[in-house]
Amino acid sequence: MPGSTPPSPPPAGTALRTLQRWRSTGQEQQVDVIAEEVPVVMRYNGAAFAVMMATPCDLEDFALGFSLSEGLIERPDQLLSAEVQPQLEGIELKMTVSANAPGAGLDPDNGRLLPGRGGCGLCGARQLEDVLRPLPPVKDRRTYQTAALQRALAGLAPHQPMNAASGSTHAAAWADASGRIGWVREDVGRHNALDKLIGALHHNEHSIDGGLLLVSSRASYEMVSKAARAGASVLAAVSAPTALAIDLARSAGLCLVGFAREGGFNVYTHPERLQGDGLHGHPPA
Amino acid sequence: MPGSTPPSPPPAGTALRTLQRWRSTGQEQQVDVIAEEVPVVMRYNGAAFAVMMATPCDLEDFALGFSLSEGLIERPDQLLSAEVQPQLEGIELKMTVSANAPGAGLDPDNGRLLPGRGGCGLCGARQLEDVLRPLPPVKDRRTYQTAALQRALAGLAPHQPMNAASGSTHAAAWADASGRIGWVREDVGRHNALDKLIGALHHNEHSIDGGLLLVSSRASYEMVSKAARAGASVLAAVSAPTALAIDLARSAGLCLVGFAREGGFNVYTHPERLQGDGLHGHPPA
Repeated sequence: MPGSTPPSPPPAGTALRTLQRWRSTGQEQQVDVIAEEVPVVMRYNGAAFAVMMATPCDLEDFALGFSLSEGLIERPDQLLSAEVQPQLEGIELKMTVSANAPGAGLDPDNGRLLPGRGGCGLCGARQLEDVLRPLPPVKDRRTYQTAALQRALAGLAPHQPMNAASGSTHAAAWADASGRIGWVREDVGRHNALDKLIGALHHNEHSIDGGLLLVSSRASYEMVSKAARAGASVLAAVSAPTALAIDLARSAGLCLVGFAREGGFNVYTHPERLQGDGLHGHPPA
Repeated sequence: MPGSTPPSPPPAGTALRTLQRWRSTGQEQQVDVIAEEVPVVMRYNGAAFAVMMATPCDLEDFALGFSLSEGLIERPDQLLSAEVQPQLEGIELKMTVSANAPGAGLDPDNGRLLPGRGGCGLCGARQLEDVLRPLPPVKDRRTYQTAALQRALAGLAPHQPMNAASGSTHAAAWADASGRIGWVREDVGRHNALDKLIGALHHNEHSIDGGLLLVSSRASYEMVSKAARAGASVLAAVSAPTALAIDLARSAGLCLVGFAREGGFNVYTHPERLQGDGLHGHPPA
C-alpha cells in the first residue's frame, strides 16, 4: 500500500518491488508489498484443464473449491490428492480425482471435459449453452438479521492481511448468523478468493449454509454462480452487481446484496431473507 | 449508483432493476441503473473461439481490439467484417478474417488455434508456455510530463457515463501528450474496456503511441500484456499492479504507473519515461 513501511517478511502471496512515489511534496524511491499473480495449471489425472492466474497461497483450498465450483468433482471426497509443484514459469496443481468424477474424463490432448465445460466459469466455454448452466435452487431459506450483516461487514477488514499490506487483493469471507467472521481467503482474483473460501469451508467440514457469504468485490455472473452452487443463501458484495448477476440470483433463490458497507446496503433479490428494524449507526462490535 | 434517480433512457449497456435500499434512516424500494453483463461468443470464419462476458456496447470496437490483442489477426485489415447477432441467451459476434490471419486456422470442432492460444488472455490456455507469451518491446521511447498525466487523471470521470449511472464499470482511455482525453470505452470487464479502446483507436486510424493509456482498474498481467502489444508506452492504472504485471512491464519497456490519482501516483517501471518538477496541487484544467 502506498506510503506504508513494508513488514518483514511480507505476507504469503506477496512480494517486494521498488517504485518511485510521486506526491505534491516531491518524489521518493521506496519498496512496497505487491500481490503476486502466478499462472497455475489445473491438472486432473494428468490432463491439463485450464491455467488460472492466482495468488500463490492456500492453493490446497483453491484446488478443492475450484474443482467443486467448476464441476470437475461432485463431492469433496472425489478429490483424492492435490500437489503443488513449482515450475520455472508458474505452478502446477496436480490433482488426482476418483474414476467416477467428471474431471477423470478429461481428454489429455484437448483438456476440455467431454460434455463441454469451463475453467474460471468461462475458460474453455465456446458456446452460449456452455455458459449459462442452470443453478441448483438455494436450499437454506432461513432469515438473517440486518445487524448481523452490518457486524460482518464491519469486521471484515482486519481479516484481510494481504490486502492491508498490498492494497490490491480481494477477499471472500463466511460469517455466522450473528455476523462473526469465521473464514476468509484472499487472492488477486475475486473468483479465486471465493473458490479458496469454498475449499477452506469443506476442508474444515463446515457447511456454508447457516451463515453469510461476503466478497470485497463486485457481484458478477460467476460470483453468483459459484455462491449458489456452493449452497450459500445470502451473498453480500462490497461493490456493484451486474444485471445478469441479479437475474441469476433471483432465479436461484439467492439473496444478493450489493454496495454492502457498514453504513448501508442494497438488496437486489429475495429481500425476505433479511430482517431487522433498520440499520444501526454503530453496529455491534 | 445508489441513491441516484435513474436517467431515462439509461446509457447503452445498462438496464434498470428494482432494489431495496437499507440505510440508517430506514429502507425504501427504488430503481437503479445496473451495468449489463452478457455472454458474447467470439466466432471466426464460423468457428467459435471463446465466450467473453462483456457489456453489450461498442462491440465492433471490441471485435477489432480483442482480435488484435489475442493474436487472431495480425493487422486491423485482416478483420474483414464483424456482425453483432443477438441470440436468446447472449450475443454472437460473427467475424470474418482473411485467409492468412491466424484466426482463419481455428479448428471448428475444437475452437482452439492450432498453435495453442487463448481467449481473455488465458481462456483456452492449458499449459504454462501458452500464458507467458513474450511481449514485443515498446517502440515509443519519448518522455511525458507528469502534469499531463495529472491532467488526464483529473479529466477521466466525466468521460465515464456508464460508470456515473451504474457505479460498476471500468474504463480504458487514451490521452494525448498534453493530457487531453481523446477516447474512452467502458465495460464491466477491465480487459474488455481496454480491448474496446484499442479497437476504437484503430477504427479512428489513430496511433496509440504519442499518448498515455489510462485504466480505471488494477494493472494485472493481462492489462500490461494487451497495452504493450498495442504499442502503448505508458500505462497508468487507478488501482494496484500485481508483481507479475510489474515484471512484464519492466521487460517489455512499458512505463507502469499504479495508484494513479490526481494527487499522486506510483511509478513501478521505467520512471525515465515521465518527467516534471513535482506535482501540482491543482492540476491544469
